[in-house]
Amino acid sequence: MTEFSFELLATDGAARRGRVHTAHGAIDTPAFMPVGTAGTVKAMMPASVAATGAQIVLGNTYHLMLRPGAERVARLGGLHKFMNWPGPILTDSGGFQVMSLAKLRKMDADGVTFQSHHDGSKHRLTPESSMEIQRLLDADITMAFDECTPFPATHGQAEESMRLSMRWARRSKEAFVARDGYGLFGIVQGGVYPDLRAESAKALLEIGFEGYAVGGLAVGEGQDAMFSTLDVTTPLLPGDKPRYLMGVGRPSDIIGAVGRGIDMFDCVMPTRSGRTAQAFTRRGTVNLRNARHQDDPRPLEEDCPCPACRDHSRAYLHHLIRSEEILGPMLLTWHNIQAYQTLMAGLRSAIAEGRFTRFAAEAAALEEMGDIPPP
Amino acid sequence: MTEFSFELLATDGAARRGRVHTAHGAIDTPAFMPVGTAGTVKAMMPASVAATGAQIVLGNTYHLMLRPGAERVARLGGLHKFMNWPGPILTDSGGFQVMSLAKLRKMDADGVTFQSHHDGSKHRLTPESSMEIQRLLDADITMAFDECTPFPATHGQAEESMRLSMRWARRSKEAFVARDGYGLFGIVQGGVYPDLRAESAKALLEIGFEGYAVGGLAVGEGQDAMFSTLDVTTPLLPGDKPRYLMGVGRPSDIIGAVGRGIDMFDCVMPTRSGRTAQAFTRRGTVNLRNARHQDDPRPLEEDCPCPACRDHSRAYLHHLIRSEEILGPMLLTWHNIQAYQTLMAGLRSAIAEGRFTRFAAEAAALEEMGDIPPP
Repeated sequence: MTEFSFELLATDGAARRGRVHTAHGAIDTPAFMPVGTAGTVKAMMPASVAATGAQIVLGNTYHLMLRPGAERVARLGGLHKFMNWPGPILTDSGGFQVMSLAKLRKMDADGVTFQSHHDGSKHRLTPESSMEIQRLLDADITMAFDECTPFPATHGQAEESMRLSMRWARRSKEAFVARDGYGLFGIVQGGVYPDLRAESAKALLEIGFEGYAVGGLAVGEGQDAMFSTLDVTTPLLPGDKPRYLMGVGRPSDIIGAVGRGIDMFDCVMPTRSGRTAQAFTRRGTVNLRNARHQDDPRPLEEDCPCPACRDHSRAYLHHLIRSEEILGPMLLTWHNIQAYQTLMAGLRSAIAEGRFTRFAAEAAALEEMGDIPPP
Repeated sequence: MTEFSFELLATDGAARRGRVHTAHGAIDTPAFMPVGTAGTVKAMMPASVAATGAQIVLGNTYHLMLRPGAERVARLGGLHKFMNWPGPILTDSGGFQVMSLAKLRKMDADGVTFQSHHDGSKHRLTPESSMEIQRLLDADITMAFDECTPFPATHGQAEESMRLSMRWARRSKEAFVARDGYGLFGIVQGGVYPDLRAESAKALLEIGFEGYAVGGLAVGEGQDAMFSTLDVTTPLLPGDKPRYLMGVGRPSDIIGAVGRGIDMFDCVMPTRSGRTAQAFTRRGTVNLRNARHQDDPRPLEEDCPCPACRDHSRAYLHHLIRSEEILGPMLLTWHNIQAYQTLMAGLRSAIAEGRFTRFAAEAAALEEMGDIPPP
């Protein structure tokens, strides 16, 4: 039996090098979780995701409850078996996608009723049903059911929304079925208002969770506001629990957040960009659709171990994109997930060796340079 | 230096077990060549194609000359390097796709002028230019430039078309630049008319090629007419050269053609079907979109070594298809290519061990049974 726990291995300023232990294995932090929305990290074989160094993937409760259905996933042995990902899985609560994707949603104090964006069928999510669905999916890390406060929101709106989320957080905790190696994370809300973030953090600590997420960011507030909010939030969170910044972000967002004490991240950016010809490199993003690459025999990124860089030229990747070949998204998604995992591995080493500040400065300088000039 | 050659290892009736030696390696026959139209076997990594046992892939001259262009491929080191396929490659002559895809094509005695289906740009293919393009692509096996006789065609139409192809075959031979390990294949035409097939075979033998293809079949004539045509054609071809049946086909077509002395095949069916939820199994084709699979925990095919069968349930494959996830085509394409390569490996063993007839009968009986019943 594995107890769900967080091991703090090293610190460098506010940055932390740690390890989360779960029923399905360990996660070295800082960690980036590739998004596997509907039971697949889009355009990737699970073995390829693992080959990049990723140790945990994220599944979306909203998508999976609608299709194929949580009960069906449970009957088929749980999400790990269903998608052939034997490692840890985190599921979100479903709340965020209900707001962004579902049709005709109706909030009340108890939960939210909505129609599927697939077929209009009617569904309901409450803290209790979200916990039950995430249990059926067999998520190692369950997220409390909350309302993601929209941006912009007035202080009054953010306060009301946060307090609703805190009531739901308590109900989530009460409904969560404790199991060895499984954990429930609470989510700090409160928009960009420091007093509300403090009130939210305090409320969650009183309830008690295995980890704490910072929610309601990366919704349009900008990097400065996001970092300011982290500056006032992470110091309020306990040092012995993992901290997860939801839905973030670009490499510079991640580096800045790690420097502010965040341990875990997820974002659709590397996968989504991989399907739209955008590649992340240490020298910024590269658009492989651009004709400048059509005769370029060089790899996308010189010392990247992914097959896009190891086996192919920029000219070939450009050709695949132009020809709308499926191999284009396959290779670019792989590269982007690899680039993110390489970044996380670099951050972990830098923190362990006490050179996080230099690592962050060098990464910023490289990104500032931009892509290599044409040959 | 490798001489391009064909080694006949065993025979069982008319069926042959052999090996083709080329500049980029050997091909065990009977062989199925996955189609890599535009420099990629669609939805497959090249290493995955090789993992199925495939030893040679096919590239399409028409597609590659238009995009990215043969000169560009040559500048980038040839098609092997461009697509990261170090093994043998066969390219077709471009003639077939000019007829099926190009706009505003105009035939004359010298060649064909046409407009690209991408952008309307004007291009010309002649026996000489087709040889030059295939040389630039660095194809191990070059196909003579011919006209694929449409079906149905009267005896007069088929005769005229075949005689044009024979004149072009001679010009192809004259234009082909001989290189160690590289070969040129002539293509027998003549529709479903035995006298024309005989005339065509005789004409090609007088010119002399490293291999002989049977063209103009699998264009709607039906399996019986195809087999009858093979019955009168393959006995006219030399025993010491490989024989290639172009564009064929379903597993039962392949088995029947192997029994009539064919060594090589190509067909888009396994790859195209993989993108439309159709899986080839020994018990016939299975449509993974069908709701009968939604709760089925069993693998698509019990003892198939591909990742779709090894790592996933029919329920999961069904979910991927329903959710339009890219991983669906990725896994089903892999399975189909594997199923074809497993068939070819079975044929090779059966011929070597003198049990081809029993193998063919067992394969037909299994296919006749149809898919396993729902659980």
